[in-house]
Order: sequence, then C-alpha cells, then structure tokens
Amino acid sequence: MSTPLELALIGIGTGHPEHLTREAERTLRQADLILLPHKGEGKEELAQVRLQLLQHLDIDAARMAHFAIPLRRAQDNDYLQQVDEWHAAIAQRWQATIAAHLQVQSGAKPANTPLQVALLVWGDPALYDSSLRIAARLQLHPEQIRVVPGISSLQVLCSEHRIALNNIGEPFTVTTGRKLLENGWPHGIDTIVVMLDGQCSFNQIDAEGIEIYWGAYLGLPQQILLHGPLQEVKDTIVRTRQQARTQHGWIMDIYLLRKR
Amino acid sequence: MSTPLELALIGIGTGHPEHLTREAERTLRQADLILLPHKGEGKEELAQVRLQLLQHLDIDAARMAHFAIPLRRAQDNDYLQQVDEWHAAIAQRWQATIAAHLQVQSGAKPANTPLQVALLVWGDPALYDSSLRIAARLQLHPEQIRVVPGISSLQVLCSEHRIALNNIGEPFTVTTGRKLLENGWPHGIDTIVVMLDGQCSFNQIDAEGIEIYWGAYLGLPQQILLHGPLQEVKDTIVRTRQQARTQHGWIMDIYLLRKR
Repeated sequence: MSTPLELALIGIGTGHPEHLTREAERTLRQADLILLPHKGEGKEELAQVRLQLLQHLDIDAARMAHFAIPLRRAQDNDYLQQVDEWHAAIAQRWQATIAAHLQVQSGAKPANTPLQVALLVWGDPALYDSSLRIAARLQLHPEQIRVVPGISSLQVLCSEHRIALNNIGEPFTVTTGRKLLENGWPHGIDTIVVMLDGQCSFNQIDAEGIEIYWGAYLGLPQQILLHGPLQEVKDTIVRTRQQARTQHGWIMDIYLLRKR
Repeated sequence: MSTPLELALIGIGTGHPEHLTREAERTLRQADLILLPHKGEGKEELAQVRLQLLQHLDIDAARMAHFAIPLRRAQDNDYLQQVDEWHAAIAQRWQATIAAHLQVQSGAKPANTPLQVALLVWGDPALYDSSLRIAARLQLHPEQIRVVPGISSLQVLCSEHRIALNNIGEPFTVTTGRKLLENGWPHGIDTIVVMLDGQCSFNQIDAEGIEIYWGAYLGLPQQILLHGPLQEVKDTIVRTRQQARTQHGWIMDIYLLRKR
C-alpha cells in the first residue's frame, strides 16, 4: 500500500459504551477510517451493537467503512490451514476497503500524514481474537500497529458475579470448550474459565464439587447470569442458553468453573 | 455501619489515565469518598501515581481519605491464616476511615442517600487482588458492592508487545512465580503468564524452546519491555530488573512464557 497508514486494533469490551477506555474512545474519535466487519445472517445484531456504540460517541458515519467478512471454508479437516486461508482473505478485504476509501477521499489528508485506520475488536485484542494475526499480513512496520487493550468478557463475568477470578495466590487456566474436553481438568488448577464453547462442555465433565459462574450477553441489556453447584444448575444453564439463542438469533457466553 | 453506603471497587488499570474506562471515570467523579491506601516506605511512588491519576481527573482532594495499610504479620508459617488476619485489619481500617469522614461531613448528604465510597484497585479487581474478600467483611448486601473492571497488566503486556495472549484456539495459564516452581509447566499448555514474581522464577526453569515477553512498570513513563528466547535474554532481564528496582525503589513486572 503506497499511502502510509497506522492501524489501531481497539478492544471495545463487551459493547457497552461504559466499558470503553479513554484510550479507545480517543483513538476512535481520531480515526480517519473505522473498518466495520459484518459476519452475515444471524450476526447482524452484533454489528448493530458496534454501530450503536459509535453512534453513542457521535462518530460521523462517513468515517465508517462496512465490509463483509468472507466465509470460512470448512470442507477439509486441517483446522489451522483453514484459519490461515481465512485470515488471508480477511486481510485482502481490509486492504480493499481501505483502498476504496482512499480513492474517494483522495486529497483529503495532507501528503505524508498517515491514514489512521481503526478496527473494533470485541473484548481485548489479545484474547481469542485474530486481528493481530490478520494485521501481520499487511506487512506494516510494528510501529504502524497499535493495540488498545479492552475489557474482556472474562473480567465482566467476574465483576457482574462479584467474584475474584483466582483463589488467593492460586493459578487459573483459560481454555475453550473443545480443549476442556480434550485435555481434561488441568492438574494443580482449581479455577478454569471457558470461552468459545458452543457445545455446553460443562455438561460433559464430572460435576462433583464444582461451582459454576455463567454469563451471557455480558454488558448488554439482555445480560443473563446464573451460578451455583454445577450438578444443580447445569440443566438450567443449558435450557436458558438454548432459549436465549433462539430468541436473539445469537449468543455469546462464558463461564468460570471452580473446584470447592 | 448505620449510614447506608455503596462501595465501588474500581479497577484503574496500570495507573495511566488513558487506561481508565468511562465507567471507572464516572464512578470516581460521582464518589463522595475515595479511600486511598498507603503501603508505607518504598511504596510511596505507587501512592503518588494514584494521586496523580485523581488530580488528572480534577477530583477534589477533600473527597479523598488517605489511610495506612496495616503491616502483615509474617512470623508464623500459615500463609492463609496470615492473609485472613491481615484482611480483617484492613477492613477495620476502611470502616474507621469511612466513619471519620462521616463525622466530619455529617449533614452534607440528604438522609437515606447512600454514601458512595470508591476504592482504587490496580489492574482489575478480579485478578490477584483481595479487595472483594476484604469488602465481604463489611457485611454489606451484595447490591451494595459494585465491581468496575479495569485493564490488567497482563493485557497491557500483550498490547505493548503486540502479541496475542493465546495461540489460535489454545488455552493458557496465569500463575505466580511460586506456583510455577511448585507445579512445574502445566500439561497441555503452551502459554503461561506469571504475575507476582519477585524471585525471577523464569531463571529457574528449563529455558529450552521457550520465548519470554517481559514488561515492567507497564503503562507508566518508566515502562521497560524485553523479549526473546528465554535462554538468551534471561540474564539481561534479571540485571535490568535489579537496576530498575534500585533506581525507583519498587518494581511491578509480569511476563509471558510461550513454548515454541
């Protein structure tokens, strides 16, 4: 890309404007261009939350560029290869969207002033998000990329339940539903946080002596919290999750498991 | 306590005003009383960072109540018992500081309007912080306690190094220096974040095939970042840490270890 640019990956937290940091807010206000991905059917409510956040900050719609996230090819079994090709396709989409903007806006910025491009990331860009890996394909200098940390759902899960993540001086593990089932409960760990679990994996482990703190749509008006001994509440969580997903068309949830 | 109160535990991130969330800022501005703990000799620079943050927000000094954190008794070996007694002593100090403020300010608030008390917590109140456990001793109703999540040092470590915390779809463990040495490298985990490590425990593990990302004073002007293969950079980190600690009188650092 011939025009110099600076790319800010901005953690926006859960979508609630109050979770934005001052740095995130300032970076959004200073951006020349804000890339707004759309994931297609069923995920439009999520795109709406992002848009409402920007409208809440009175950010001019002319600075927003909407683009469709390409579909991930899912026909073969090599997961990492799939992800790699998908990231390449998304990086191309970013570049095309930026190029289209530059064509329309040409001359609007003084020469040699880098274009400030911002990308909104749910939660924190360091946690189960690939924006940094996609950005690496743009062949920018490291100084052209800035990461703005954001409040992640695991922090909101704890703050809403008014619990500490870790026991005093003790470690904890953050994992996915798939890895929880693959690896089992890690040795020497009393607390696990599970993200990206569409399979209710908590329902497939030995529930004896385990407490669960579950949350969905954290930080949003439709937030749901449930907690209790896993054995007693797991059915309620599975049912509540299913109903909420049907009602809203999507769900994002997370939970913490603690051994008593 | 007879006057109704609402206690907000506010995660302030690293001390950099830009890491404050809008919720944290608003809660600080609305607080009737902000409790400011002092940890005594050698830690005064930390208290100063907190004070500068409040001054940066133009918060009236009359709303701040300074108090000394009691010393932790360290003569016997029962660590959890020590912590328990220490937390009880801190809770008493909070109550005494609030009571003293109420005596001075009596009549300033309309009757039955709860006193809004705020406590600043480094990083995030859910992560290696005991404010919630201390607050539990005040025998408030759960609704009287609010937790405001903040950006934690582990997030700033990643954002400053421009790295993702986890590999794609992979789990990670957050632990302390002590537990890293006690438990060893956890099975099935490629990424570990170590907090609260005054002993440079990274220097006592098998460095083969491990990458380290280290940061100290994250988010502050004196921030230091180092990274590289553990074998190659560990001596530099130990030396840099020692020099910085001597220079500033205190250090807060954190690191991420990743197996290649």
